[in-house]
Amino acid sequence: MSKENKNRPAPEDVKTVGILGTGVIGGGWALHFMRQGLNVIIFDPGEKSKSVMEDMVKTTWSTMEKLGLKNGASIDNIEFAKSMEEMCKKADVIQENVPEDLELKQNTYKELDSFFNPELIILSSTSGFAMSDIQAKADYPERAVVGHPFNPPYLVPFVEVAGGEKTSVDALDWAFDFYKKFEKKPVKMKKEIPGFIANRLQEALWREALHMVDSGEATVEEIDDSIAFGPGLRWAIMGPCLTFHLAGGEGGMAHMLDHFGPALKEPWTRLEAPELTKDLRDKMVEGCKREAAGRSVSDLVKERDECLISIINALEDYRKTVS
Amino acid sequence: MSKENKNRPAPEDVKTVGILGTGVIGGGWALHFMRQGLNVIIFDPGEKSKSVMEDMVKTTWSTMEKLGLKNGASIDNIEFAKSMEEMCKKADVIQENVPEDLELKQNTYKELDSFFNPELIILSSTSGFAMSDIQAKADYPERAVVGHPFNPPYLVPFVEVAGGEKTSVDALDWAFDFYKKFEKKPVKMKKEIPGFIANRLQEALWREALHMVDSGEATVEEIDDSIAFGPGLRWAIMGPCLTFHLAGGEGGMAHMLDHFGPALKEPWTRLEAPELTKDLRDKMVEGCKREAAGRSVSDLVKERDECLISIINALEDYRKTVS
Repeated sequence: MSKENKNRPAPEDVKTVGILGTGVIGGGWALHFMRQGLNVIIFDPGEKSKSVMEDMVKTTWSTMEKLGLKNGASIDNIEFAKSMEEMCKKADVIQENVPEDLELKQNTYKELDSFFNPELIILSSTSGFAMSDIQAKADYPERAVVGHPFNPPYLVPFVEVAGGEKTSVDALDWAFDFYKKFEKKPVKMKKEIPGFIANRLQEALWREALHMVDSGEATVEEIDDSIAFGPGLRWAIMGPCLTFHLAGGEGGMAHMLDHFGPALKEPWTRLEAPELTKDLRDKMVEGCKREAAGRSVSDLVKERDECLISIINALEDYRKTVS
Repeated sequence: MSKENKNRPAPEDVKTVGILGTGVIGGGWALHFMRQGLNVIIFDPGEKSKSVMEDMVKTTWSTMEKLGLKNGASIDNIEFAKSMEEMCKKADVIQENVPEDLELKQNTYKELDSFFNPELIILSSTSGFAMSDIQAKADYPERAVVGHPFNPPYLVPFVEVAGGEKTSVDALDWAFDFYKKFEKKPVKMKKEIPGFIANRLQEALWREALHMVDSGEATVEEIDDSIAFGPGLRWAIMGPCLTFHLAGGEGGMAHMLDHFGPALKEPWTRLEAPELTKDLRDKMVEGCKREAAGRSVSDLVKERDECLISIINALEDYRKTVS
């Protein structure tokens, strides 16, 4: 039992991250933290997990080099624990990646609580469960926070940080600061909702795609082309809201909503739109204004075009090499 | 009247594109065709349209240069017609971009039919109307085809090609070949559906985003970050279906659907999913198999990572310059 009352380190003072469960997500987190100059200590009870992880590190390290190694980063910053207890003793924070099975998760948190200093934070990669459910049986639920990554976690920056009913505010803040410090792009959720943010958005698109294939309106390839050679290019640069801000000309989002608002009633997807109240309109307009941060629509168009050229040229070089 | 019985040129023999209506879309098309080495002849009755168009060409030409000029491309490949008739006489094909007003579009097609050789093709940039409605009053409806671009048309490659009830198969094929020849990424629609393909998909995502802002679940900035730093990066590379194919590990889309299929019942968006029948499952799996074209999931992961690094590095360079 390592419940000596050592204090929680500040996010920037973390030295060692415990990775519980490997696979694509756990392994991806390990690579990210190693690139950031941290040590990782891994525990996974699977028989082959060590050799699979070693292979993954070996084949992916050159990718980490291309992205840029931070101070202290090394392919050797990895250790395999023989038990959960050993991992818990050496880790300053744990990123949990056990399979998406609620009972398994709940029992895991209970077990972690018996080994892991209650001052320290546990982050869950869950995409499917609310932290309120995961932490239900834990002894120290206040230090458990969702830190939901996107595949592959060693490349895609976005992380959703969400607490459960019993998560403390300072644990939530610590998690946010930790990810931010180590070059993720975290968002702190205000409400506990199924699917968090990005999965709700991509699930809406995905379901419409399935409907279209189901009804013979489009093929898989046509759907992929329509996004990869269409809106997907723009979304990689500035997301859907600011992209539509640019569609409104100099009037931006305000003009877009006032002018194209009625299109929300069109049967352009199977998803019903919300009522475009003045309040919603204003929230969208104000949000885009904050994001634009003084840049005019022309400024943003110029920036978007510059980025589009970089992306298009980069993808073209790649597609030439594989075709 | 220029209805002399000249034959329709093959797509690759087009020399001059008529641009009816300027603005962001018409002007964007003009720039694209000029970069492709074609001539454009523009007609727009608006008083300032000529000077606005000239400004747009001047400020955007360097962007065209960065993307790469094709044989014969020149900033001088542009002419302004004094009348619709003059434009019709000189054009081998017309890209129509008049405002989204059905009656205006219908009357425009009737007028075009009185000047423009009926053998030649008219392409409509409409995003809102079905070609069956636009062509309803035309004398030569068989040559009218939707060619719906994405903003900005001089950069984003995707174009939806869709016919109406009266559009001929050879007009539809010609339009597809024409866009393909001049470096667009066209898709030929099999059914006439509102919103075509990409707008249905992006509208589903957009409506879910509006719901989330409306209910206080996320802000505009959080939604944009969640896509731009998350799934948007991956979609720019391979679209949503092949991206999920990679989420299934070596089992690909088949494993993904068999394993995560039940998640379709989760309230992860306000859009109801279709029933995941065996037929739909197989269509998705077969589609990904065709797209992968012999590449294993590991091959695709490697390619995705290479592209992600290019995109992330390109965007990082850009964000440094603006922050």
